[in-house]
Amino acid sequence: MIALPVEALSAEAFAPFGDVIEARETHAFWVNDGQAQRFHDLARIEVGVDGHTSVSIFRSAPSHFPLALHQLERHPLGSQAFIPLGVHPFLVVVAATTAADVPERPRAFLSNGQQGVNYRPGLWHHALVALDHSTDFLVIDRGGPSANCDVVQLTIGYMIDAALLAD
Amino acid sequence: MIALPVEALSAEAFAPFGDVIEARETHAFWVNDGQAQRFHDLARIEVGVDGHTSVSIFRSAPSHFPLALHQLERHPLGSQAFIPLGVHPFLVVVAATTAADVPERPRAFLSNGQQGVNYRPGLWHHALVALDHSTDFLVIDRGGPSANCDVVQLTIGYMIDAALLAD
Repeated sequence: MIALPVEALSAEAFAPFGDVIEARETHAFWVNDGQAQRFHDLARIEVGVDGHTSVSIFRSAPSHFPLALHQLERHPLGSQAFIPLGVHPFLVVVAATTAADVPERPRAFLSNGQQGVNYRPGLWHHALVALDHSTDFLVIDRGGPSANCDVVQLTIGYMIDAALLAD
Repeated sequence: MIALPVEALSAEAFAPFGDVIEARETHAFWVNDGQAQRFHDLARIEVGVDGHTSVSIFRSAPSHFPLALHQLERHPLGSQAFIPLGVHPFLVVVAATTAADVPERPRAFLSNGQQGVNYRPGLWHHALVALDHSTDFLVIDRGGPSANCDVVQLTIGYMIDAALLAD
């Protein structure tokens, strides 16, 4: 089993895979006569020509560590965003695609608990990894016709060690 | 000044105005091999033919009570959803439209802190009313061309008394 390093989640590091949804000053302006600050347009939501934007809540059970990664999935027809409802750190595991259309070595990112993510359409990803306790996420993804989930079993064993989360 | 009653927010009570976004068992199924529960498709997001779905964060300053309501606004071209990032009760003030296309008497709803709302396109509403402290909301609304905000000054004075929030 290959232990994956855990990287801090940031917009720059995650750019090849999608968006980080967080309150960044560079995207901010004031609204409602100064009563509120709007951190604006933080994710590119894509649902294709025959889809609609779907809003759901995911309630994820905490994962156990060391965590072995067995499979990844992807949604070719739409983006998928997860935003923690409250300050809840969690892990995001994603992988680029090789020329043979299989996942490259996955990368693991640790959200600081106030960062959400938005996966680009077709991005290989592991199921969300909640940490210490059950975590609710707001999910924004695609509803609509046609199959929109590919699953691949990983032929190389990867794992994430809880000790790496503290780095 | 007319004091508005404060009603508990529920999907049924809010149905004429839009959706309540909350984890309801009636919309739930299991995903990720039982690792997560999905409360599914909780809001109808509408952005029109020339708009796109925009995801932002609002950071709202707390309001002071008694709160006088001076104006309402509406966005004719798209829906607008607000989901508190964490457990943060807040007030939603909305109004139906009369035959003369002006707001009827507003109604005030109190979110339990785990309920978000989605306003239908064109719904008259007050700016979000955060309560005790600065509150972050995830916002899902429409980006795109064309003017999409009407503002109306209220000719009848309405107010919300903090004492009513406890009812």
